[in-house]
Amino acid sequence: MDGENEESGIAMTTPSGSMTIDDLVDANHILYAQRVVDGYGHVSARHDVNPGRFWLSRSLAPALVTADDIMEFDLDGNAVEGLGRRPYVERFIHSEIYRRRPDVQAVVHSHSPAVIPFGVTRVPMRPIFHMAAFLGGNVPVFEIRDIAGATDMLISSASLGAAFALFLNDKPVALMRGHGSVAVGNSIPQAVFRAVYLEVNARLQAEAMRIGAVNFLTPGEALLAAAANDQHVSRPWELWKRELGKKTKLD
Amino acid sequence: MDGENEESGIAMTTPSGSMTIDDLVDANHILYAQRVVDGYGHVSARHDVNPGRFWLSRSLAPALVTADDIMEFDLDGNAVEGLGRRPYVERFIHSEIYRRRPDVQAVVHSHSPAVIPFGVTRVPMRPIFHMAAFLGGNVPVFEIRDIAGATDMLISSASLGAAFALFLNDKPVALMRGHGSVAVGNSIPQAVFRAVYLEVNARLQAEAMRIGAVNFLTPGEALLAAAANDQHVSRPWELWKRELGKKTKLD
Amino acid sequence: MDGENEESGIAMTTPSGSMTIDDLVDANHILYAQRVVDGYGHVSARHDVNPGRFWLSRSLAPALVTADDIMEFDLDGNAVEGLGRRPYVERFIHSEIYRRRPDVQAVVHSHSPAVIPFGVTRVPMRPIFHMAAFLGGNVPVFEIRDIAGATDMLISSASLGAAFALFLNDKPVALMRGHGSVAVGNSIPQAVFRAVYLEVNARLQAEAMRIGAVNFLTPGEALLAAAANDQHVSRPWELWKRELGKKTKLD
Amino acid sequence: MDGENEESGIAMTTPSGSMTIDDLVDANHILYAQRVVDGYGHVSARHDVNPGRFWLSRSLAPALVTADDIMEFDLDGNAVEGLGRRPYVERFIHSEIYRRRPDVQAVVHSHSPAVIPFGVTRVPMRPIFHMAAFLGGNVPVFEIRDIAGATDMLISSASLGAAFALFLNDKPVALMRGHGSVAVGNSIPQAVFRAVYLEVNARLQAEAMRIGAVNFLTPGEALLAAAANDQHVSRPWELWKRELGKKTKLD
Repeated sequence: MDGENEESGIAMTTPSGSMTIDDLVDANHILYAQRVVDGYGHVSARHDVNPGRFWLSRSLAPALVTADDIMEFDLDGNAVEGLGRRPYVERFIHSEIYRRRPDVQAVVHSHSPAVIPFGVTRVPMRPIFHMAAFLGGNVPVFEIRDIAGATDMLISSASLGAAFALFLNDKPVALMRGHGSVAVGNSIPQAVFRAVYLEVNARLQAEAMRIGAVNFLTPGEALLAAAANDQHVSRPWELWKRELGKKTKLD
Repeated sequence: MDGENEESGIAMTTPSGSMTIDDLVDANHILYAQRVVDGYGHVSARHDVNPGRFWLSRSLAPALVTADDIMEFDLDGNAVEGLGRRPYVERFIHSEIYRRRPDVQAVVHSHSPAVIPFGVTRVPMRPIFHMAAFLGGNVPVFEIRDIAGATDMLISSASLGAAFALFLNDKPVALMRGHGSVAVGNSIPQAVFRAVYLEVNARLQAEAMRIGAVNFLTPGEALLAAAANDQHVSRPWELWKRELGKKTKLD
Repeated sequence: MDGENEESGIAMTTPSGSMTIDDLVDANHILYAQRVVDGYGHVSARHDVNPGRFWLSRSLAPALVTADDIMEFDLDGNAVEGLGRRPYVERFIHSEIYRRRPDVQAVVHSHSPAVIPFGVTRVPMRPIFHMAAFLGGNVPVFEIRDIAGATDMLISSASLGAAFALFLNDKPVALMRGHGSVAVGNSIPQAVFRAVYLEVNARLQAEAMRIGAVNFLTPGEALLAAAANDQHVSRPWELWKRELGKKTKLD
Repeated sequence: MDGENEESGIAMTTPSGSMTIDDLVDANHILYAQRVVDGYGHVSARHDVNPGRFWLSRSLAPALVTADDIMEFDLDGNAVEGLGRRPYVERFIHSEIYRRRPDVQAVVHSHSPAVIPFGVTRVPMRPIFHMAAFLGGNVPVFEIRDIAGATDMLISSASLGAAFALFLNDKPVALMRGHGSVAVGNSIPQAVFRAVYLEVNARLQAEAMRIGAVNFLTPGEALLAAAANDQHVSRPWELWKRELGKKTKLD
């Protein structure tokens, strides 16, 4: 399905300041530096002027993304002035979430390693420490087999994207069986924060369960701690941005 | 509660040589390089002239801390000449330990990953090898729920700080359920050493328990080995400082 | 057996463009950067003009391989114009696979760490997520003891190589008990992709099995996902090549 | 006990070419780069002209060792022309092994992390793949408690060193309960190779035992594979040396 919209040219791109695009490029590099994405995975941001559009790189490893690779899409997943660039097959994860969730400004899709096992077993992921309090309670797992039978596991159409967005509902995170996960946020730094600490929580929960029965955050603690953390999302974001200049940026 | 003391200006800062502050800046960077802290966590040092004061960075990722970010606090956690800088919400961990423990010259608070599981299960951490002999016997776990019911998990007030310091008592280390841990020392290098090897011990103990029943250091061995190690705290400290110049310093 | 063909000079090397050799040198460095090989392991490519020949480095750590170290071999594992360079003892893994498998253009042999445990236990490796869909179903394990009794574990002769190639049959991957694994591909990037994600799958499967019963990809899902992935093999390859220039290349 | 021989000046140092000392400095840096040692641990080499002497750094983190830090010791562990430099407390590990084992030319002592758990449980380490074939069969574990009761765990005297050397007997490796391990070799590269792959084997064996019953190398396979590997010890050594110039050397 790749490239089907390459020349659609359905509309003009919406003029906008470049700050969000710069942050989106940084988010691509940060997610790679934090090992949330490898050669695969992607992160998008809703257009900062036109909420019916979003930005997402052309099909490319996140670490290599530059501002020139960022494409504008509408909420059907169609490229706006695509200029012949090949989009990600799974852009419908993003388009359908932006359609259903006006609160969401950024979406991360990854195959981060510690999360995969929780997608293929029946043990729910839950917040083991305050940094992952945003998880709230059990993290839902999307089973594409229930929706579409045997597939290539990818969210490669608007209808699969809509099914996933419906399943995600109002949650910050959902896992995808045999595939990966999605984290959303009300800003690029929040979505990145959630993708990073989702992975950390998976690692720590798996480790803790091997030691003994786990005393998770209660729903009340999770609610309070998530609110407190939201005041400090910029702290790691500033660190991660500073590190890009030192060792992660490949372009 | 962040920033409540920003303009308090309760007193003048105490003049002092800068060596301790330089070491404190290094400790911030070392703890990041050793993966004891990430974007969060903090390390303080008691003022080297005025024991009723201590130094701690403004609210910032440890890897980014410079001498200009170090603030002076009194033992109530009030900033001295804060100059409008935002302090860490959890500075009361530090202030209340310095109040109760005249032997303590430095305090590390972190969420180092291998330690978290031992805070949420009922298996006590114990010294598995001589490098962690300072742990002595079972490491205590602070349960904030017992003190304050449902919270955001943070030590965000003097009263919570006092409860934690009381719980820590005369120990070198205490874990915090669903949150992290605190390590103290009679010098910055000793506190950093303890924070690093607390994490190493957690990793090795978890691994060993999966292999079989563990033959831990006896209390007698722990006492003797801790004393021996205290003669050699400067060895890794010198290494860690040398490495900062090569690859860790971000400023 | 090393060096037995050093001066054989059985024939002239076949002229060819250097692109495949450049890619093969990159593959050596990439496999090291991805921790699939350490000081040991090797990767070869079939000659791009003469299908009865293949390229493989002289006996050297992969990270140190340059174009000058690449030797040409025939399908008996004899060096062509060897110039006195010492070949790998295990070049017969490569020669015998190229002989039996006209579809194979590249072969990776490694001791990548997460794979070793699946070679010495009776739990079969299976695809846990779409990135490893190429595994299909159970990954076969070659037992050299059944073929040759007590050995030094190495595929150090044409007959052992032929036995291994026969065992591999039409599969993309086979493990070797107490030794390592082999991944093949229809291109250098595909063979490298498979070697990398074989290791990732081993790590994730081991982790998932400790959490609970694993819901693997079905054969149908694996078939569809493998075909989809084959469209995107160049994405990580481009990333890995870009990284070489930044931090991995040692020559 | 540190420094007791500082000014002993019992004899003149023996003139010698510097090649062994250069290799010993490299070995210090390589063991750090390979995470076999951290701030602690040490590696020595027998004097290349006078077999009654050996070289070992003054008390220093291995990564910081330079040729000027290398001291000459006799087989009682006394410094020869010590020049006031402080020796390692545990130099008697080295002196007593060199005394009993004329075949040994180099000794590594480390606390490498994956090995520690096998020293404190009753599950013997055994070779899981050919790279660790030098282990032969079960790796012995030295229990200092049986020799000396409650201690600081250190081999801090000639008599403890002699007890350890007696226990090591003709083996290439022995673990020390609650402390670490020792690997010896007939050359610096071989001792370093063994220290590195001892750690790798520990990691892989622990992982494999969690998956199922392990099919270890038989004694016959171990014997043959160890002999084969000894032909290729220089391959990783050359790699490790090349990497020092790129990223590990701190001096």
